[in-house]
Amino acid sequence: MERPATAAQAPSGAGAAGAGGAGPVAPTPAALSQLQPLPHDAAELTAGWLHDWQQLTLTSTLPHVLDRVEQGEARSNLARLVGESDAPLTGMFFTDTDVYKAVEAVAWASTRLPADHPLLARAQALVDLVRRVQEPDGYVNSRVQGDPAVERWSDPQWGHELYTAGHLLQAAVAAARTGSLPGALDTARALADLVVALFGPDGTGRPGYVEGHPEVETALVELYRLTGHAPYLATAARQLEVRGHGWLGEDRFGSAYFQDAVPVREAHEATGHAVRQLYLLTGAVDVAVETGDAELLAAAVRVWDDLDSTKTYVTGAHGSRHRDESIGDAYELPPDRAYAESCAAIATFHLAWRLLLATGEAHYADAMEHVLHNALAASTSLSGTEFFYSNPLHLRTGHGGEHEDAPTQRLAWFTCACCPPNIARLLTSAHDYLLTRSPAGVQLQHHASAVVDAALPSGAHAHLEVESDQPWAGTTRVVVTTEDDDAWELALRVPAWARDWSVSVDGAPVDAEAADGYVRLRRSWAGQHEVVLNVGVTVRQLTPHPRVDAVRGCVALARGPVVYALEQADLPEGTVLEDVRLRRVIGAARSSGPAAALAPVLVEAEVEVQHPHETALYSSAPRSHDTDVHVVRLVPYHRWANRSPGAMRVWLPLSDTSAG
Amino acid sequence: MERPATAAQAPSGAGAAGAGGAGPVAPTPAALSQLQPLPHDAAELTAGWLHDWQQLTLTSTLPHVLDRVEQGEARSNLARLVGESDAPLTGMFFTDTDVYKAVEAVAWASTRLPADHPLLARAQALVDLVRRVQEPDGYVNSRVQGDPAVERWSDPQWGHELYTAGHLLQAAVAAARTGSLPGALDTARALADLVVALFGPDGTGRPGYVEGHPEVETALVELYRLTGHAPYLATAARQLEVRGHGWLGEDRFGSAYFQDAVPVREAHEATGHAVRQLYLLTGAVDVAVETGDAELLAAAVRVWDDLDSTKTYVTGAHGSRHRDESIGDAYELPPDRAYAESCAAIATFHLAWRLLLATGEAHYADAMEHVLHNALAASTSLSGTEFFYSNPLHLRTGHGGEHEDAPTQRLAWFTCACCPPNIARLLTSAHDYLLTRSPAGVQLQHHASAVVDAALPSGAHAHLEVESDQPWAGTTRVVVTTEDDDAWELALRVPAWARDWSVSVDGAPVDAEAADGYVRLRRSWAGQHEVVLNVGVTVRQLTPHPRVDAVRGCVALARGPVVYALEQADLPEGTVLEDVRLRRVIGAARSSGPAAALAPVLVEAEVEVQHPHETALYSSAPRSHDTDVHVVRLVPYHRWANRSPGAMRVWLPLSDTSAG
Repeated sequence: MERPATAAQAPSGAGAAGAGGAGPVAPTPAALSQLQPLPHDAAELTAGWLHDWQQLTLTSTLPHVLDRVEQGEARSNLARLVGESDAPLTGMFFTDTDVYKAVEAVAWASTRLPADHPLLARAQALVDLVRRVQEPDGYVNSRVQGDPAVERWSDPQWGHELYTAGHLLQAAVAAARTGSLPGALDTARALADLVVALFGPDGTGRPGYVEGHPEVETALVELYRLTGHAPYLATAARQLEVRGHGWLGEDRFGSAYFQDAVPVREAHEATGHAVRQLYLLTGAVDVAVETGDAELLAAAVRVWDDLDSTKTYVTGAHGSRHRDESIGDAYELPPDRAYAESCAAIATFHLAWRLLLATGEAHYADAMEHVLHNALAASTSLSGTEFFYSNPLHLRTGHGGEHEDAPTQRLAWFTCACCPPNIARLLTSAHDYLLTRSPAGVQLQHHASAVVDAALPSGAHAHLEVESDQPWAGTTRVVVTTEDDDAWELALRVPAWARDWSVSVDGAPVDAEAADGYVRLRRSWAGQHEVVLNVGVTVRQLTPHPRVDAVRGCVALARGPVVYALEQADLPEGTVLEDVRLRRVIGAARSSGPAAALAPVLVEAEVEVQHPHETALYSSAPRSHDTDVHVVRLVPYHRWANRSPGAMRVWLPLSDTSAG
Repeated sequence: MERPATAAQAPSGAGAAGAGGAGPVAPTPAALSQLQPLPHDAAELTAGWLHDWQQLTLTSTLPHVLDRVEQGEARSNLARLVGESDAPLTGMFFTDTDVYKAVEAVAWASTRLPADHPLLARAQALVDLVRRVQEPDGYVNSRVQGDPAVERWSDPQWGHELYTAGHLLQAAVAAARTGSLPGALDTARALADLVVALFGPDGTGRPGYVEGHPEVETALVELYRLTGHAPYLATAARQLEVRGHGWLGEDRFGSAYFQDAVPVREAHEATGHAVRQLYLLTGAVDVAVETGDAELLAAAVRVWDDLDSTKTYVTGAHGSRHRDESIGDAYELPPDRAYAESCAAIATFHLAWRLLLATGEAHYADAMEHVLHNALAASTSLSGTEFFYSNPLHLRTGHGGEHEDAPTQRLAWFTCACCPPNIARLLTSAHDYLLTRSPAGVQLQHHASAVVDAALPSGAHAHLEVESDQPWAGTTRVVVTTEDDDAWELALRVPAWARDWSVSVDGAPVDAEAADGYVRLRRSWAGQHEVVLNVGVTVRQLTPHPRVDAVRGCVALARGPVVYALEQADLPEGTVLEDVRLRRVIGAARSSGPAAALAPVLVEAEVEVQHPHETALYSSAPRSHDTDVHVVRLVPYHRWANRSPGAMRVWLPLSDTSAG
């Protein structure tokens, strides 16, 4: 069955564009999914931490990204092909993806922008440019079209052709679902049809051709979901099946780098390049749920579990190694050389959302919340226009951070600029991840203030007004308004970090359990009712698994979903951060002064500074030190490096006096 | 003044070739040096650890290296230029250096090889090949000559042309000093003269041209020392002066990577690519001592001190980062991702020798001893034919070590094969580093069994027979035989690790001090006298400086100069190495069984294996475990990975019960 979807004018989804078109990730009714997302824009952020970040994205990040895309090689590599730029072909092999991700970001934003908003015209111009560059057979890739020495599909390891295609497809899906940016879908489908013709099950391209960087799999499934055109799904499934047999060769970093050493369906471990691994799993879940492939879904869950239990930073980040941007061994989680790429954090968020939909298990929502509030949020400056590519958990005193590989401060752009537009496309659709629905009812997955229009099992709708002061405090108030008399379940996720919680309906305490991570309230909600969930927000001292050698003897402090960090700026002048030891946590403190711009709540702790007497790097003699005691305040990790450059650490070594 | 040195037939030095020609590093009489090396072959290793390694080098490593050089791109890239190979141009930009380092290794060995030894003919064939490839103006570099698209000196960052030239010069110096391999010196001088013409103080090449990889500086100084041709020294000095002004640009890793961010004479910190940094300092010391530039020497000492006190692994290795092979920040010394390149260990040995000669300070000899017995010795397998390129201090359980970047086992060769021939050239000259002389007398710097012919201050000679059971025990016996009546000082280094020591002459205890690291015995040694130095060799528990976050709560065990490691093979089956905690050191143990092939002395310790109850990577809940107690044996770090592949660690976390 093919849905009518020849262009953006006819998106799939529950309703018309901008009024119920699907958001990112829209499993078909036949999918294995336990939960369904709400349509795009069913929820609207109204206040609070995530709202403010989304607004910053719209007012600062996205215009900045478009500036850079329009003024840099991302646009000029395309424009030169149609005589609209004299700039030389330059940059990474996938500069087109900066265009596509920026377009996707605008598409998700489009439904709440006035029709004459400049972002729309700027994105449309990029869409139109791509259309003009596209060859008659559907092929479009400026780095290949622009270089006579390069043949199409000649460099599967590094050419990023299917990866780049995937981002065009995702942008077009966003445009179609939002009814914006006409032309994008036609362009994408022409390219997708070429990909199917070459690399689908009956493709005429090189047998076994595997793309070095997964991404097209999830994009093809989304295009299938939009259009109902089954060959897209079949081609995605085929890309998964041909990978893992060593076809890409060892090359510089070995087969595992490309996740080409073991078929995804047989994998037990997360390996290789972090973003590739996570995008691959994302595509695997999409294919699994749409093809009813429980074995493939189980494989993705298995690899997620490996990641989650042995290869995840306390900030939710993934990927420890700089050299090959790879995940590293189990428990290899150095804080000071954490690579922890922003795009990997985005991919983790995408993957966890898919696993949440597929399984209905709350711990995936916990993971989304955690990576969003820490690794992912740290990527962007308070100004919205500077970014981290890698997100270390410890910047050492005296760090030589001039180079963009591990700078001391966020940068406006990068030689490889994948992260900033990726952040933008996630944030303009951030509200689409707040709630889910199921045959039982509606689930509030993330605690953020929003107004929501949710379809109920009966087909009727409910209006939800959510007010939450998370992440800084623990109250979420939901006012449900509906005319539906049927009983349905309103489930509110109780975050895994909450030590205690209570819930009331219309002011009366409710004796509910949350054994599976949700407090589930099943009743008729006809009329208007108020649900209040209070969760205890305390400062937690997190200890690492004893096999995480790099942070032995340390704790990380977290409060709610937010991990805190100690910055040089908050230490007595002249203190060497590495001499600081935690004596005890005092507690949360309302911020004031310059720190108030960073966050409303800081964490206060008593520390000692141990001034070492001995300078020997290694010694068999006893070591000694003088000790000063100070009270210091920690800032949210995601707000570090918004003041003067300086050392920072998440993991605090315990003093001998600490109760630990 | 220019010494007569037109060819290998007339080397400089104290005597004729093979009977007193200089070894590696031969400061001129005018140099600032406090100490002088003995001539090449003045000492001959007779037994023990270093002797056995040198023999292994001659019988296994060097033939293996020559096999690989002759059969691979190192030779074919040159041979194809004169129609002697059909192989395509391939490999790293500096494949010629594999040839040069192999030739240098044979040259140093040549004085003790029979004239018809096949190694000599094989090296001669390589020397002759280079001669035929050399262009009329002296230029020779197969990667540039072989590629029409590449112009000479067009890629200072990565072309490695002066680096490659430097290794030819060093090979030629070795040939000339040993009277071996005729033709090498003429080839080298022709190239050196071209380098002087282009990049000397009056050079016509690009002003300010800096080579991305230092090496030519030390080579030019050594060629100056051999020939007395001052422009070689001036050109080396100029290469030092033009570096550090950012001329090389940021490129991929920033100016600091090339040590081009700060002039070497102004540097306070060791930065960037480890081998480049160390080779640069090596050249800086050579230039400083020959030009009488105390400021430059002080700069090299300053950067050494920074390295030694904040950026050195407990194995003596340097360079923590894989991505750019760089040194890392102060105290950034992760054991499991230690890059610790074998070539950096070699460079450290070379640099420390030069600083020892320049200053006469024993701690440089301690550093040589330490890196030799640990990082450097670890590079080579018991078979002598397999090598580590990087030398981690912790191989994690389950390490994904298929790739040559961080393999689980030593490999026979590498894509970048710099290390194996570098090891070979150091080991064939290892006996040249045992002793020094000065106006005061003779210094035994390293404890190894050898027979030595040493020139005395009077001009007379002494014959020394040294018997030492170091590194496994603590007795060094020196029998001095001389006809010289004059008083002179025999100094024996007391290793920094020795907790106690005693010395006797002719059986009578001597009440001597060793305040500066040497026990100094000044007297007439006419006739024959026996000196015995006994040093206490105990197992030491080394603690790291508290700022070395990566090994907090751990100790490393060392005995004498040898650092020990715990290997999977020595743990109860099924044990996860990262669950092991040290309870107490039992002491040294004579090895037996299969481990006896590794070392005569192992270290025995009581450990507990903590089987964790909780799997959560991070948790605010208490953690608990079951405990098994075992007695285990540790092997010398330099012998790890000579049995089955498996996890290994140098730094042992302490159990709570440990006295620490």
